[in-house]
Amino acid sequence: MQKLLRDNVIYNFENGMKGAYKVKDGETFTVETCDCFHQQISSEDQVLLEIDMDIVNPATGPIYVEGAEVGDILKVEILDIKIDDRGVAAAIPGSGGLPEESKEAIVRVIEVKEGFANYLGKKIPIEPMIGVIGVAPGEGEGTWGTHTPWKHGGNMDTKTITKGRTLYFDVGQEGAMLALGDLHAVMGDGELCFTGLEIPGEVDLKVSLIKGKKKLNWPVLESKDNIAIIASGENLEEAMQNAASTAVKYISEVLNSTWAEAYVMASQVLDLRISQVVNPMKTVRAEIPNYILTMEEILNRN
Amino acid sequence: MQKLLRDNVIYNFENGMKGAYKVKDGETFTVETCDCFHQQISSEDQVLLEIDMDIVNPATGPIYVEGAEVGDILKVEILDIKIDDRGVAAAIPGSGGLPEESKEAIVRVIEVKEGFANYLGKKIPIEPMIGVIGVAPGEGEGTWGTHTPWKHGGNMDTKTITKGRTLYFDVGQEGAMLALGDLHAVMGDGELCFTGLEIPGEVDLKVSLIKGKKKLNWPVLESKDNIAIIASGENLEEAMQNAASTAVKYISEVLNSTWAEAYVMASQVLDLRISQVVNPMKTVRAEIPNYILTMEEILNRN
Repeated sequence: MQKLLRDNVIYNFENGMKGAYKVKDGETFTVETCDCFHQQISSEDQVLLEIDMDIVNPATGPIYVEGAEVGDILKVEILDIKIDDRGVAAAIPGSGGLPEESKEAIVRVIEVKEGFANYLGKKIPIEPMIGVIGVAPGEGEGTWGTHTPWKHGGNMDTKTITKGRTLYFDVGQEGAMLALGDLHAVMGDGELCFTGLEIPGEVDLKVSLIKGKKKLNWPVLESKDNIAIIASGENLEEAMQNAASTAVKYISEVLNSTWAEAYVMASQVLDLRISQVVNPMKTVRAEIPNYILTMEEILNRN
Repeated sequence: MQKLLRDNVIYNFENGMKGAYKVKDGETFTVETCDCFHQQISSEDQVLLEIDMDIVNPATGPIYVEGAEVGDILKVEILDIKIDDRGVAAAIPGSGGLPEESKEAIVRVIEVKEGFANYLGKKIPIEPMIGVIGVAPGEGEGTWGTHTPWKHGGNMDTKTITKGRTLYFDVGQEGAMLALGDLHAVMGDGELCFTGLEIPGEVDLKVSLIKGKKKLNWPVLESKDNIAIIASGENLEEAMQNAASTAVKYISEVLNSTWAEAYVMASQVLDLRISQVVNPMKTVRAEIPNYILTMEEILNRN
């Protein structure tokens, strides 16, 4: 199995990128990732504001997927996530979801052992997840730093992007140009203080191309129970509306209902959930249960 | 077991209310509730905007709890929720979480049978929940219509306020003055179109008084897995901050940590979740897992 080392990383998702790695349609491979601080922090005594911010949030890639063309959908199956045995979490004055209350800079180096992270005398069950994952945006769709989530994916910081789930992205340029990084050993919905438990690791992925379908508009995450549309916006209201609007449209298109009927259906079955509140764009996911619609039905919708 | 019929309802939670019913500390009783439209809708042909809006969102009560004094905490165990076999859902132009896209008024009368609501050819598993539940606010803490959630509870529209869970409220006046209504057979996180599946029913409750503890500040919902602080605000950001700020304070007080350490802990373990996006105040809940702290520890915190 091909292993893509963390030698090549990007700090922006943008159209026109050149592939640093190459994989085939249908290939399974491993991607090695840096932590979000590019492994600059090794001690709790370090002064967080003195690290090199220009190399923060590296995403390993870009990975050129052979055969990927503009208008395809890239299916990315997350087969496994392996993480190191030590992670870093931090708070900075004036940052995170409670910026006015956050007055002290602290760095915590936290041990991960036998499935638990150990902090403040508590054993926290780990749930490894991918913070940054995305593809090149389409032409004219902007340059997006790896700090920011948008329609191409990016820093979605969604705790449900875990082993066993599958992501779907609209392909914006030839080769798709997948890149990922910013693993978390564990993170709560919201990522309140602005970090999860940041950790280097390896991700096993399988990529496949889906051709001839309608655009998804936002990344979609499939699990055995539901389909989540992961959308972002300037604030939580805008992120919520972007996610909910796409969900209602999908429901209406799959069930052949009016928009109003789909709106009423969504109100009963759709879960609007916070992914993160701390990045330059905020992220909300709209989870539609599988008994209402499946990914296959979304791909084949009218 | 005493049954409180839906003969007496309130439309405001305010200080100085007189009890319409009386229960003892430790008593188990049943409360009958109207649906949020006060059962005015019986047909899909009805014009939603012509119903009497002055009697919308009735809450059965106030229920005077003997011995309840200002400064106590009222513990409300939700033992069971029984609902009717027919509910109502509706969309109104310009309303709900997608007001600009909502252009058509529709009313749907939806059958509930054998654990499922039947709509658009789909069977939706029901999860009965309480939309409005609260107590009198303290003196000078305002008059709150039953449409609006705040520190006294009210229209929290939180899908996890279900059978088996326990709510805790700060008592703001003698007798506490509990009132509830607005049951939903099912509702997604967000209540996107502005109604759940609105339905009349009966709720079995047990109330108990807890004396000599610190104020909770916002309602707290206890389940076997976590403790949820249910907070509201003018928008989702403000609601999130009110919930998260309270959660970080609890973690810091229970674990005897600094505020910054509790902030970092919250970022790993706290789930910030949307309850509703459609009421005059929006609601977010902050769920702290039980392996970090328990309700008993919150009540006994420093």
